[in-house]
Amino acid sequence: MNAEIVSVGTELLLGQIVDAHAPVLGRKLAEIGIGCTHRQTVGDNLQRLADALRLARSRADVVITIGGLGPTEDDLTREGIAAAFDAPLVHDPEIERGLRALFEARRLRWVDSQLRQAMKPEGAEAMPNPNGTAPGLWLEREGRIAIAMPGPRGEFGPMLENHVLPRLSRLSAGVRIVSRVVRVVGIGESVVEEMVRPLLKSENPTIAPLAHLGEVHLRITARSSDPEEIRRLLDHAETELRARLGDAVYGVDDTTLQESLVAMLRDRGQTLACAESCTGGGLGAAITEVSGSSDVFLGGFITYSNELKQKLLGVPEEVLERHGAVSEECASAMATGARAATGATWALSITGIAGPTGGTDDKPVGLVFIGIAGPAGVDVRRHQFLGEREDVRRRSRQAALTLLRAKLLEAG
Amino acid sequence: MNAEIVSVGTELLLGQIVDAHAPVLGRKLAEIGIGCTHRQTVGDNLQRLADALRLARSRADVVITIGGLGPTEDDLTREGIAAAFDAPLVHDPEIERGLRALFEARRLRWVDSQLRQAMKPEGAEAMPNPNGTAPGLWLEREGRIAIAMPGPRGEFGPMLENHVLPRLSRLSAGVRIVSRVVRVVGIGESVVEEMVRPLLKSENPTIAPLAHLGEVHLRITARSSDPEEIRRLLDHAETELRARLGDAVYGVDDTTLQESLVAMLRDRGQTLACAESCTGGGLGAAITEVSGSSDVFLGGFITYSNELKQKLLGVPEEVLERHGAVSEECASAMATGARAATGATWALSITGIAGPTGGTDDKPVGLVFIGIAGPAGVDVRRHQFLGEREDVRRRSRQAALTLLRAKLLEAG
Repeated sequence: MNAEIVSVGTELLLGQIVDAHAPVLGRKLAEIGIGCTHRQTVGDNLQRLADALRLARSRADVVITIGGLGPTEDDLTREGIAAAFDAPLVHDPEIERGLRALFEARRLRWVDSQLRQAMKPEGAEAMPNPNGTAPGLWLEREGRIAIAMPGPRGEFGPMLENHVLPRLSRLSAGVRIVSRVVRVVGIGESVVEEMVRPLLKSENPTIAPLAHLGEVHLRITARSSDPEEIRRLLDHAETELRARLGDAVYGVDDTTLQESLVAMLRDRGQTLACAESCTGGGLGAAITEVSGSSDVFLGGFITYSNELKQKLLGVPEEVLERHGAVSEECASAMATGARAATGATWALSITGIAGPTGGTDDKPVGLVFIGIAGPAGVDVRRHQFLGEREDVRRRSRQAALTLLRAKLLEAG
Repeated sequence: MNAEIVSVGTELLLGQIVDAHAPVLGRKLAEIGIGCTHRQTVGDNLQRLADALRLARSRADVVITIGGLGPTEDDLTREGIAAAFDAPLVHDPEIERGLRALFEARRLRWVDSQLRQAMKPEGAEAMPNPNGTAPGLWLEREGRIAIAMPGPRGEFGPMLENHVLPRLSRLSAGVRIVSRVVRVVGIGESVVEEMVRPLLKSENPTIAPLAHLGEVHLRITARSSDPEEIRRLLDHAETELRARLGDAVYGVDDTTLQESLVAMLRDRGQTLACAESCTGGGLGAAITEVSGSSDVFLGGFITYSNELKQKLLGVPEEVLERHGAVSEECASAMATGARAATGATWALSITGIAGPTGGTDDKPVGLVFIGIAGPAGVDVRRHQFLGEREDVRRRSRQAALTLLRAKLLEAG
């Protein structure tokens, strides 16, 4: 069984919005064994839309449209499907009743243009859309299926998960394609490749490394018509990768490095604080993305000015004068000061030159010192990052988290 | 003159990556007067790629491919263009020389598979790619133009700006479509609409409001074949909007609220500090995104635990016991404490319940207090935000920046 996605909207062609739904749909279809060989994007023009749908109908078992279901005259997907699938539009009193009830419940003024949304190609079923007005449509016609889905963010996802995927999944007997990502930190892409090279030749599952801001993500992709077999293939490959990469693997799929660190600290009953200069709070913000981080994260300091480095963290004036704020000595004093002031088990510090200005020959843009103070003393790493201001800041944050992980593993 | 974009790559269909280039290309083409009526996405399959290109050739003056130019056997765009435009592949010794020189300069090992990148459809010109190996291609054939561009992020953009757009711009005499965004903060979408309603009926330029995390962005879109006329239309509409919205407009296009605030503080010779609880550093990180923010931003405190709120900011124990950390009183004490400890002109504070846990009937998830201490005293606003943890944190940050803007305007 194969599908073709047709995204509808002039604003997509003009690049005013990015088509975020089509990739999600493509991935989810692959996971239930439905392949996509083409995708089309067309504007709000009936002739072109109908032609695109005819073309899709000629080569795909399932044609799925995204967008163009609203009440305005620009919304032409219903008309397009009617034309391409030879199913004239008819009024559905059931849909109209639903729309009127919705308007009443939300105390919105009814306008008759809403009636466009009560039209459907003859023989189509309406799919409920609890998060919007336009229902989705499901039409079966001469062995082909046409599915119309709404474009708004809050409407597309729930209809996909609750209606479209469950129904298609029952019809599909195809080869499913499912991925799992094994996340590695602390070693570079080429070293990771060297460590897992024999596995990269595997054909099912395939394993592909992708460099990703101080991490390497290994994407395992398994194909089978049997979900059990897929799970087995993914599990086996993950085990093999972990055996070779050891502690460098910190999580799978959507687990973030911060999440793994919060869990490690919680397990040990330890706490964390931070002192940030060039990241300006980004490290703390990253850690507190994790729900429950308050169990282990006490807080910290944003010491952007030299005065605050002295006043809040006790960085000696002599260090700032002799070595400057961007120095090993300053990073060390910041970490030590933050640990003392907060009483945390661990304190991370970051001081560097994010750019684009402020660099010198001796201390170029991208020079960053990361410090960590812990039960066994203080340690500082020097980094020279490439990229623009936000790259340097993101890499600094990531390097600090990576250093914390190394120290936690070292401490055992 | 019209163009059709064909994005190439199975990973796009599988949703493993999002097509970020096609929207940019669509927008840039519109700006130089080249319309797009269709977009196609195909996988790494020669037959389907060639068919897609033939279809594009049949209906567009310019066919632009993205991706599929690398050295591996999956990279089939050269072959596809050759087939669809009846221009057999030939070896280009000039391209080969360039590739070999590049490999030598980078001390990379030469492999003969690289020679695939030295092939081009007969009659095509190579477009230099200083940021990668595969050159772009420009082929004119029977009044149609085929352009092949590389997919990698660092390669696509420069080739677009330096080669493709300048050349196409000279050929285009079409109606140009250019947008400008006027950014409004501090008033809701429906109020903004009310204030500018007569302008929303304009047909050229069109003006469309879009709600955007505590801001409203008004997109002005002008159409004309004359760039001067476009500028005039955009300027006039911007002036009209500013006349109606006054101080609520803080900037245009990519200007961020933080940038406008840093500029305002710098103009006044004033400084800023912050004290954050639930945002965990996100407010400081947002402010320090701005290059040069060190002129006005001194730093601040991340006081995630109650102990640090007392110890670092001097929040009285009695406030925490009687009112709790999420209270008007605590926000007030945090702002006052941060201002006193840093000596800043202004200090912002944020304390709230980001969720998903930690909410109670009295203090539900999303309850956030934002405080500001300044020359005229301290002020606190209570917010009840909706959404998930990161939504609440982003809205809190935005509300703090909005409050600072209001206070700066008030102080005059």
